[in-house]
Amino acid sequence: MSKKIPRSPSNDYTKEIAENRRQFLKEQTNVSLEHVGQFSFEPSMLPGNIENFIGVTQVPIGIAGPLLVNGEEAQGEFYIPLATTEGTLVASYNRGMKLLRESGGVTTTISDDAMQRAPVFIFANARQAREFGKWVKENFLEIKKQAESTTKVGKLRNIEQYCASKFLFLRFNFTTGDAAGQNMVSKATKVVCDWIRSNYPQIEHHYLESNFATDKKHSRINMLNSRGKRVTAEAIIPRHLLEKMMHTNLDLVYRSRNISNLGGFLSGVNNNGAHSANGITALFIATGQDVANVTESSAALVYVEITPEGDYYYSITIPSLIVATYGGGTGLATQKECLELLGCYGKDKVNKFAEIVAATVLCGELSLGTAIVSEDWITSHEQYGRNRP
Amino acid sequence: MSKKIPRSPSNDYTKEIAENRRQFLKEQTNVSLEHVGQFSFEPSMLPGNIENFIGVTQVPIGIAGPLLVNGEEAQGEFYIPLATTEGTLVASYNRGMKLLRESGGVTTTISDDAMQRAPVFIFANARQAREFGKWVKENFLEIKKQAESTTKVGKLRNIEQYCASKFLFLRFNFTTGDAAGQNMVSKATKVVCDWIRSNYPQIEHHYLESNFATDKKHSRINMLNSRGKRVTAEAIIPRHLLEKMMHTNLDLVYRSRNISNLGGFLSGVNNNGAHSANGITALFIATGQDVANVTESSAALVYVEITPEGDYYYSITIPSLIVATYGGGTGLATQKECLELLGCYGKDKVNKFAEIVAATVLCGELSLGTAIVSEDWITSHEQYGRNRP
Amino acid sequence: MSKKIPRSPSNDYTKEIAENRRQFLKEQTNVSLEHVGQFSFEPSMLPGNIENFIGVTQVPIGIAGPLLVNGEEAQGEFYIPLATTEGTLVASYNRGMKLLRESGGVTTTISDDAMQRAPVFIFANARQAREFGKWVKENFLEIKKQAESTTKVGKLRNIEQYCASKFLFLRFNFTTGDAAGQNMVSKATKVVCDWIRSNYPQIEHHYLESNFATDKKHSRINMLNSRGKRVTAEAIIPRHLLEKMMHTNLDLVYRSRNISNLGGFLSGVNNNGAHSANGITALFIATGQDVANVTESSAALVYVEITPEGDYYYSITIPSLIVATYGGGTGLATQKECLELLGCYGKDKVNKFAEIVAATVLCGELSLGTAIVSEDWITSHEQYGRNRP
Amino acid sequence: MSKKIPRSPSNDYTKEIAENRRQFLKEQTNVSLEHVGQFSFEPSMLPGNIENFIGVTQVPIGIAGPLLVNGEEAQGEFYIPLATTEGTLVASYNRGMKLLRESGGVTTTISDDAMQRAPVFIFANARQAREFGKWVKENFLEIKKQAESTTKVGKLRNIEQYCASKFLFLRFNFTTGDAAGQNMVSKATKVVCDWIRSNYPQIEHHYLESNFATDKKHSRINMLNSRGKRVTAEAIIPRHLLEKMMHTNLDLVYRSRNISNLGGFLSGVNNNGAHSANGITALFIATGQDVANVTESSAALVYVEITPEGDYYYSITIPSLIVATYGGGTGLATQKECLELLGCYGKDKVNKFAEIVAATVLCGELSLGTAIVSEDWITSHEQYGRNRP
Repeated sequence: MSKKIPRSPSNDYTKEIAENRRQFLKEQTNVSLEHVGQFSFEPSMLPGNIENFIGVTQVPIGIAGPLLVNGEEAQGEFYIPLATTEGTLVASYNRGMKLLRESGGVTTTISDDAMQRAPVFIFANARQAREFGKWVKENFLEIKKQAESTTKVGKLRNIEQYCASKFLFLRFNFTTGDAAGQNMVSKATKVVCDWIRSNYPQIEHHYLESNFATDKKHSRINMLNSRGKRVTAEAIIPRHLLEKMMHTNLDLVYRSRNISNLGGFLSGVNNNGAHSANGITALFIATGQDVANVTESSAALVYVEITPEGDYYYSITIPSLIVATYGGGTGLATQKECLELLGCYGKDKVNKFAEIVAATVLCGELSLGTAIVSEDWITSHEQYGRNRP
Repeated sequence: MSKKIPRSPSNDYTKEIAENRRQFLKEQTNVSLEHVGQFSFEPSMLPGNIENFIGVTQVPIGIAGPLLVNGEEAQGEFYIPLATTEGTLVASYNRGMKLLRESGGVTTTISDDAMQRAPVFIFANARQAREFGKWVKENFLEIKKQAESTTKVGKLRNIEQYCASKFLFLRFNFTTGDAAGQNMVSKATKVVCDWIRSNYPQIEHHYLESNFATDKKHSRINMLNSRGKRVTAEAIIPRHLLEKMMHTNLDLVYRSRNISNLGGFLSGVNNNGAHSANGITALFIATGQDVANVTESSAALVYVEITPEGDYYYSITIPSLIVATYGGGTGLATQKECLELLGCYGKDKVNKFAEIVAATVLCGELSLGTAIVSEDWITSHEQYGRNRP
Repeated sequence: MSKKIPRSPSNDYTKEIAENRRQFLKEQTNVSLEHVGQFSFEPSMLPGNIENFIGVTQVPIGIAGPLLVNGEEAQGEFYIPLATTEGTLVASYNRGMKLLRESGGVTTTISDDAMQRAPVFIFANARQAREFGKWVKENFLEIKKQAESTTKVGKLRNIEQYCASKFLFLRFNFTTGDAAGQNMVSKATKVVCDWIRSNYPQIEHHYLESNFATDKKHSRINMLNSRGKRVTAEAIIPRHLLEKMMHTNLDLVYRSRNISNLGGFLSGVNNNGAHSANGITALFIATGQDVANVTESSAALVYVEITPEGDYYYSITIPSLIVATYGGGTGLATQKECLELLGCYGKDKVNKFAEIVAATVLCGELSLGTAIVSEDWITSHEQYGRNRP
Repeated sequence: MSKKIPRSPSNDYTKEIAENRRQFLKEQTNVSLEHVGQFSFEPSMLPGNIENFIGVTQVPIGIAGPLLVNGEEAQGEFYIPLATTEGTLVASYNRGMKLLRESGGVTTTISDDAMQRAPVFIFANARQAREFGKWVKENFLEIKKQAESTTKVGKLRNIEQYCASKFLFLRFNFTTGDAAGQNMVSKATKVVCDWIRSNYPQIEHHYLESNFATDKKHSRINMLNSRGKRVTAEAIIPRHLLEKMMHTNLDLVYRSRNISNLGGFLSGVNNNGAHSANGITALFIATGQDVANVTESSAALVYVEITPEGDYYYSITIPSLIVATYGGGTGLATQKECLELLGCYGKDKVNKFAEIVAATVLCGELSLGTAIVSEDWITSHEQYGRNRP
């Protein structure tokens, strides 16, 4: 083989060139991409989202809800589109949403918000690295000016410093409006680095990234300091509702939670909860998020209590939920529709969307957390997930 | 609101009920799901994959390659379908595939394979938990028989034991053929637990899961002991090729890698490489994998060397790559086509597919790893990713 | 300066050469080491424990107890010698011991026991590394024979394998009798490596250690798989006793524990308990343990429950408690006396000693854990620790 | 038994009461504590360091050096007192010191300094916790005033905030002069908490500690943000010196380091170096430090390079080195002498001491790091450590 994939000399985003490529692939592999070739939108909307376009994956969407959210931006009931191929997932979240709806809804709070780029600066020795750190602090305002010269939306909030060896790792924290902002902060930080290099000649070298923003990776620093939104969803579920609707016993559920905390501490999880990644991934695919950010967004901190009244206080904090309602895949045909369904497409909607994601996650935690105890879990997978061996 | 989502009394997997639900959503939210409603397959194929079906997300696919793989199962050139909305991603992987092709291809090796379910057993005290552990070892063959009574494909390989407090956490490791196997092992382990409870009366209680399989979560135990496949992709890239094709200098690239290792060790990443989650996610969406498993599959171990000849040895080991070529979403319309494009649909293909995923990942590592050094990275995002703020 | 430290041509372990060295240091620094020079034993007992001997540190010992232990080896009451310079420490442990004594004592269980050396084997590629792993499994009995040829006490229990890149990391697990065993396992594993190299020519190189035994370091693998003894100490403390003796309220104490679990999960601790390192360090110094092993031994897993009767079940599991009652510093003058005080000097005593350490730790957990809640903690430090700013 | 340990009605720090207690222990256990009873100082210096004093542990000290330090405070040659019972340790560090002396010495840099206390504040929900965080920022100056009212030395530098669930964890960072400062910051933070409770009535409850200072425990947050001093020791060792003096080959040593980085990343160590805890523990015992702080102080970050000239750049950064030259055990008889030997007793010496500790550590890294490669390691343990099985 080693034949080159066709490219169009004039416009690479047409049905024709996509068709040419599928034809080329058929010649190479004898496989027809019939369904892949059936999409409902004009490829002219794709630049900025894909290269070498050939068609689409059609991921089925199931609808769950209504989800009742008591957020600061998201208020009221929402029907949640979940794009997944995993049987039982929609049913399970739906079950949790019903419980939470009956319980008065999910309260959501965003307590932090930042997007990072983290260059490293290399010196002859540790002492020079430390002195550079002082200079960075003293010149913060000028650095901020440089960074913000590249973007109307992004604001440089603060710069964290981490010394090790002869290096200074800088973590630039930006707010990025309704965009996830990874590219925005890369561009802004690049301009800052160039400016720094012109003004601080002792630097031996620098790299624009050094595993300290940890894009597309879980990290401890992002659990502590947040990448994206830090969102908490919490609710108090009346004991009798939980026991009746979930066919279980709250004391057993509570004990299961405590033992799972111990299990997770020992196994070294990034999430002491049950399965937040399921709901997050399904919502991310449906709404045009950068799905690889599930790596960061799947970290979570669960805390529960039995209240003095004997009910169940359940909270989940997602320290690094990376979402957008503008830019990236959010404007594509189906993705935009799903965001619109939530009232979350476009400007000034990103916090609302983050709250809806977190509230969805909490419903899934209660559904699976109680199913494990009642062992409904296996039987429901047998019922709904018969395609899944 | 709080209106209930329509369900069909007879068959919940028809175009009509999907249309009814979209109509219902329009009434509730005033949003038309026109594009969502345009799918090319019969909903009758969906049971086991989705509930409350309303339509699809159309995720654009770009094609990269050919990718040259020197695997044990995957051999030769492959065109790789990547479903993403992140501009630059396909171009970046494509660039890496070209480099690796010129360098002689990517060698892949699968060194482990297991899928887990991890119940916890509760005792009056630690001593009873320890004694139970001995009994489990002694009764392994009977436990294996019980487990395998529920499945033709799954085989119980071994049981890990972890003691803490008055609990014994058991990690059942199965091989699961061409399926990812999460449901298969749940069902099998449930049967084992029931058998154990009948035969070991001192157990106070048990839960079928306890954060020790760590499904849909990253964990240290899965980096060590593998969940899914443990796959290594490796290659030696001639210095002159790398420097010419990637417009960079190998010594700078090598230093960047070493500093990223330090940065990642300090920031506490689950992956000292660059961005394996990008390629994995795009392949997972395209081929009907359980995309939430990106959480486990995104962990990675990168190791590089400058060879005595001055070339670049690069390896990446993915300790928990969870993939399937059978079951789950693999049989859906577009997903199946993409697997077929790779020659990976159906029985006895899962290792081949795992090798292709790992080889793809390695290409992306070299592409981004060199771009960070040359700072092609920002400018190419500006070129390809103009939708991404 | 740069003057060389005096050495004795004949016998380096005499009072005279120690005195010469102190005299030499006085000439170099003008500092008299009067107290350092006052030790009560013959230096002739020191070979194997120290080089360039000049005298001793006198670490004050306080006595706590009696500690009531319901162990498998340690049974009854023990007076615990704690060598520390931290005011309040002895008083705090003593307070906990009184509470636990009144509560019926501490139950202790050893559930695992191993000491490691972890060589790495380097190959041309990952596939060769994997094949070597199979060969190691097949040749386990011969490897065991080689290993055990170097020691009367050490037994090779099993070999863990970890693949990454083109390497195979092997973790040799030995039991080592009453010794901690680090040197024993190093020697045995060296012999094994030499034998392997003679019999498996494809190995490119090997190193006898590779950060997989993680001697003198905390590691996740040792929390999971144990280095030294895995010991659990547990007790049920009647509510009224706890509340009366610790001047606190059990519900507040319980809530504090749960919040500390969350805090520790987020901050990334290796121990969700309070301060086990305090008691372990003090006992290690008193009894001639390798005190640097506090790094491994300080990891801990705490789990608590309120019992149906309303009392407090408290357990702490130390996954890697490294102790000896034979060899190392255990035979030195004061150290041996302290081991004898516990009935733990010499052969067949190491499990007894491990149980006493764990029971001591649990008492300290309850003392500090309740003091934080009652805030006795600060005031007692003011009372007892007035030297500590 | 259950007999109570004797206490003195008037003065608990005399030879008589210590003798009474030893006599009591003899009656209870039939063990004579002859050597324990032989100490050279007046017990009247002990209040604030120990309770229920019975005597001392005599830990042998070996002297290593001279160590050549190019610090900011520590400059020139130092003879290092190492209190240990582990054979080979002093010889190994001594060997490293010789290499580094010949190489021009060890350069040391302190880049951060803080001691923490971390209370948690509990609210009705996450939103209230977040609002409290804003109030804390706005009231920093008053909080600082409250904190510093309790201490002449301690200064409140900043307060970190971590939100999770309905809690706000605050990490108070103080500088504490020449003291380690744990008690100082506890007292100061207690006063702050009381003041906050009087001024912010919405707080439901608070606890003075919550596993976020992580005293006596390793934690990720302390690797990132430092507890105690953040110290880097670095040096360039000429290739020929290293190869001649350490009987090894630099390229093999370098490769061993890189593989150990990978091994440590996978095994999950808190220190990718060799054994810093050995030197730190021995120096801590000799100089009256709080030895349990080895748990925090043993974390380390090693980074190496082969320089363009072919020499070996080696650096180790200790992110949380907790040391004092004033207070605690530093003023005890032998401990004070050892600090004086280093010119480090008393006021304004703590940075000098921290630099000496870090420089010592680096020598030990090179000694063991090269010995593993040459396998001098096992044979030297056989020569020096014959007491250690």
